[in-house]
Amino acid sequence: MAKKKGISGFPEWLPEQKRLEDELIRRVRALYESHGFVAIETPAVELIETLTSKGVVDKEIYALRRLAAEGESEAELGLHFDLTVPFARYVAAHFNDLVFPFKRYQLQKVWRGERPQKGRFREFYQFDIDIVARDTLPLACDAEVISVLGKALLALEIGTPRLKLNNRKLLVGYYEGLGVPETEIPAVISIIDKLEKIGEGEAARLLSELPLGDSERQRILEFSTHRIAGADFKSFVEGCDLGSELAEEGAEELVTILALVPEQLLPYIEVQLQIARGLDYYTGTIVESEIVEHPEFGSVGSGGRYEDLVSKYLSKKVPGVGVSLGLTRIMDLILRNDLLPLPSQSPCRVLVTVLNEAERPAAESFGESLRSEGVSTEVFFRSPKLGKQIDYAHKKGIPYVVFLGEEQSVKVLATGEQVSFDALSELFSLLRK
Amino acid sequence: MAKKKGISGFPEWLPEQKRLEDELIRRVRALYESHGFVAIETPAVELIETLTSKGVVDKEIYALRRLAAEGESEAELGLHFDLTVPFARYVAAHFNDLVFPFKRYQLQKVWRGERPQKGRFREFYQFDIDIVARDTLPLACDAEVISVLGKALLALEIGTPRLKLNNRKLLVGYYEGLGVPETEIPAVISIIDKLEKIGEGEAARLLSELPLGDSERQRILEFSTHRIAGADFKSFVEGCDLGSELAEEGAEELVTILALVPEQLLPYIEVQLQIARGLDYYTGTIVESEIVEHPEFGSVGSGGRYEDLVSKYLSKKVPGVGVSLGLTRIMDLILRNDLLPLPSQSPCRVLVTVLNEAERPAAESFGESLRSEGVSTEVFFRSPKLGKQIDYAHKKGIPYVVFLGEEQSVKVLATGEQVSFDALSELFSLLRK
Repeated sequence: MAKKKGISGFPEWLPEQKRLEDELIRRVRALYESHGFVAIETPAVELIETLTSKGVVDKEIYALRRLAAEGESEAELGLHFDLTVPFARYVAAHFNDLVFPFKRYQLQKVWRGERPQKGRFREFYQFDIDIVARDTLPLACDAEVISVLGKALLALEIGTPRLKLNNRKLLVGYYEGLGVPETEIPAVISIIDKLEKIGEGEAARLLSELPLGDSERQRILEFSTHRIAGADFKSFVEGCDLGSELAEEGAEELVTILALVPEQLLPYIEVQLQIARGLDYYTGTIVESEIVEHPEFGSVGSGGRYEDLVSKYLSKKVPGVGVSLGLTRIMDLILRNDLLPLPSQSPCRVLVTVLNEAERPAAESFGESLRSEGVSTEVFFRSPKLGKQIDYAHKKGIPYVVFLGEEQSVKVLATGEQVSFDALSELFSLLRK
Repeated sequence: MAKKKGISGFPEWLPEQKRLEDELIRRVRALYESHGFVAIETPAVELIETLTSKGVVDKEIYALRRLAAEGESEAELGLHFDLTVPFARYVAAHFNDLVFPFKRYQLQKVWRGERPQKGRFREFYQFDIDIVARDTLPLACDAEVISVLGKALLALEIGTPRLKLNNRKLLVGYYEGLGVPETEIPAVISIIDKLEKIGEGEAARLLSELPLGDSERQRILEFSTHRIAGADFKSFVEGCDLGSELAEEGAEELVTILALVPEQLLPYIEVQLQIARGLDYYTGTIVESEIVEHPEFGSVGSGGRYEDLVSKYLSKKVPGVGVSLGLTRIMDLILRNDLLPLPSQSPCRVLVTVLNEAERPAAESFGESLRSEGVSTEVFFRSPKLGKQIDYAHKKGIPYVVFLGEEQSVKVLATGEQVSFDALSELFSLLRK
């Protein structure tokens, strides 16, 4: 027999789990749209040369090969591993058809051709938003993207979100002020980026391999320990010497952004100076987020500001700011920890029973009247004993069971109550309760 | 510069086109759910051995290869080319967690590794429904699937749907009754399946290559010309000799199904005896559909009944019936023929203008109050002259522009009318108009 189990790293949900995922998608999408983000979708497939144009990630790419190609020469194609590279190519391709600022959301699977290992997804959803504009982009956009991320995490109702902000200029400027040579700064950032994962001891060891003085190393680590509540950051900056103009500029950007975030989100925001984000294209604001009750789960959404989106394709300046929500990771967190109740296995509210096959046309036509009033309805596919049909409604979580015939009635499965009704309108008022 | 254009065969829509696609998806999904179909999603990727287990379609498969695999041996993976094979694997994998009859819908991209050519999609959406059960499945399910396909095509509002039905037993039984040898029947079906595309002359030529008598060939072609309105099929069957029990059984199945389809759908249904469906797993009902005003576009949704879904994976009998809606094909039809108006480029109803940056916090907070009342709102990202901001709303199709300050007002772009308002509630009643 052929194998029937799924493939490791390619998650697959049961119907009630998929319904939960769809509900989360619905909430986040409604939020994104309420801020004017519009959906786009790009093919799953890009030219390999597009995917590798940043040079660093080629080892995670799944390349495609037509089984029947037989050596024909053809452009090399691969599956996208994130939504940022395809978005950049999209903006360049449709530059003259888009209105800027262009605010897009994008919900798609991405693929990483990693060696199979436990807990690592090789196919997963990302749910991104970005705002891009021509030439310059005001900090109001950073504030909006951070606010929307915070509101999205709140809308999921899976715990207390914590948004961890930092700024690349603040980080780089501070290191420069300490006298860290420019060439060593990327290495320092990459170590600080891993600080939470590897611990201070290991970070100190890694820093000791760089050509830095002891006091520099010490101050780099000390600086990373700062965690300042969003509401306190302004006074923190006023009371501290950041050591360089660039660092001051980065701090000022954060102050401006925090002033524009809705007040009710401020308690969820911390400026954490160890947030560094490995990717080298971030130039200002950086953000990570976690669920406070589940810090072990790591970042559930992250992003930042970049100064250059399309220069690989087009000689235009297009800065942007965006975040990516790790939807599959969040679903995994929810399912492992039972954070949300699962919906029923059926989207139906009503099951219409069928006494015998001669009654089926009447049952179907009754079902149609319910559907035309917006009530999702299933007519049972056979006509076994009514107990079996009620049992089916129980198993699928269909809350109301209708019996037709001389006396029409509806059974409310939650209470066991059975109520007769004469007209459809009586049934509707029951369903509306 | 890197290439920015998309890849031939991998369609990509502009934001307003994607909004239209999302609206079509919303309508069809609502319809599917109103009948109790539940969403599932399977990975884009399956084992190649799963994909090729039917043996016929391997030449269209895209196989995956990890760019960084360097000769490690690993299970061979490929992208699914339809949603039926993954659905079969899914039902087998989760057999004990599913409640039967299992009614699922599935909206996913599929990939066909075809040689690039104009008008051929290599990545496209399918939007499938299937009903499967254990051991046997009543004809009421065939009727439901056909009804839902008809209602889905009506919900798209792109023209008059025509559902073309036939039945494999009717076809095979009629050929048997004519004396066509059993071994030649698949070849006959495959020729009849292409009849509409290749024309009667070419079909006659192909039939003449088979070991059939002239009168058999003639009667096969004659039989194929029958097109019977759904409402007339019963009397057609009563008045005609189908020549075998199997054919009679197939015809009776169609009569039963037609009696269960909602009356208002009957005018859209024709039994067309040339509908044959190439795929060999169909065993009873077969259905294709087209938009009457665009016959040149071919089938927009098709399917049928099969007796065996999971025997490749599991020793269970699981018959089913389903149809697949060609969503990308339908979108292409709509866009090429301007069949539906495109939505605006933004999901926002209101643009809040910003007089100067000092007013931004007040504007943001006003925007938040609108959003909390369910009104999607964008706050302009900069504060240039108001004319520029209004212009932006025009370009993105945002219908209302709000001006704050001492006197608050809203401009209705469609009419040019500008109305002052004191309280938010006044604005809401304006927006509700």
